[in-house]
Amino acid sequence: MNASPALFVKMGVDAWHAQNSRVEKLLNELPESRLEAETAPGRNTGKYLLGHLVAVSDRMLETLGWGPRLHPELDEPFLLNPDRSGIAMPSVAELKQHWKEVNDKLNAHIARAQPEEWFSRHLSVSEDDFAKEPHRNKLNLLINRAVHTGMHLGQMNYLTEKK
Amino acid sequence: MNASPALFVKMGVDAWHAQNSRVEKLLNELPESRLEAETAPGRNTGKYLLGHLVAVSDRMLETLGWGPRLHPELDEPFLLNPDRSGIAMPSVAELKQHWKEVNDKLNAHIARAQPEEWFSRHLSVSEDDFAKEPHRNKLNLLINRAVHTGMHLGQMNYLTEKK
Repeated sequence: MNASPALFVKMGVDAWHAQNSRVEKLLNELPESRLEAETAPGRNTGKYLLGHLVAVSDRMLETLGWGPRLHPELDEPFLLNPDRSGIAMPSVAELKQHWKEVNDKLNAHIARAQPEEWFSRHLSVSEDDFAKEPHRNKLNLLINRAVHTGMHLGQMNYLTEKK
Repeated sequence: MNASPALFVKMGVDAWHAQNSRVEKLLNELPESRLEAETAPGRNTGKYLLGHLVAVSDRMLETLGWGPRLHPELDEPFLLNPDRSGIAMPSVAELKQHWKEVNDKLNAHIARAQPEEWFSRHLSVSEDDFAKEPHRNKLNLLINRAVHTGMHLGQMNYLTEKK
């Protein structure tokens, strides 16, 4: 049985990259104006979901101990408030730059991190809780965030042309 | 560092169960008639996505070596053809029964599987390929399917009342 920590790290990291690549591809394909549209009537716009994903990735820098984060100003419009809250948002072009910048930084850390780091606790779990729940490590956070990205990607896909 | 195979298994299995529980909760909350609706204009109906998720889970029984699958008849309407193909579909009530039946069987195997089984190859990868790419194991398939379920869950969530 090959169940080495390095193999498991690869599985989690691959899942993360796969979802991010799919978002990246979508961002490259969609006209920027299209991202301003609602993904479904009355639901989040592509722009809001993009800002939300950037804010979540940006927070990961701190939660994974690779901080400081780059864009804490995204929390207010994209994490703490719903779409159409009236709070000022960066433009789509700015959000796309932030997306690249945040993910480049995150991915550089991901590429360098050794297995022992992945199996250490992330910073939104206390030492006491981690002693009781040792699966709440950095890799687990990454896997959960891959699922989260995939969930919103499914919604952003509704901005593409219908076949 | 706690990086035991059993811990990895828990991380992957938890991700799978988390997504399935969220689908389950949605199915319990939504009126059956609501699942007949499109998740967004011109996009897949809730019914199609439910059938699609059941068919994918059902196939997993064979891919994970726990076959035979229970509902191969779901491939035609929900995997090989798009929504509104005109191919006969079971009713929503039947699909909900299939969902329960397929996931109960899958989850019973998941609960019994030992770490060495999770790190063995799944049956859609050949022995040769697995020798070269040992991360393509059963646990990896489960993680990828959790992401897949999450992606469609994000779309099915559009069937809920707007806040």
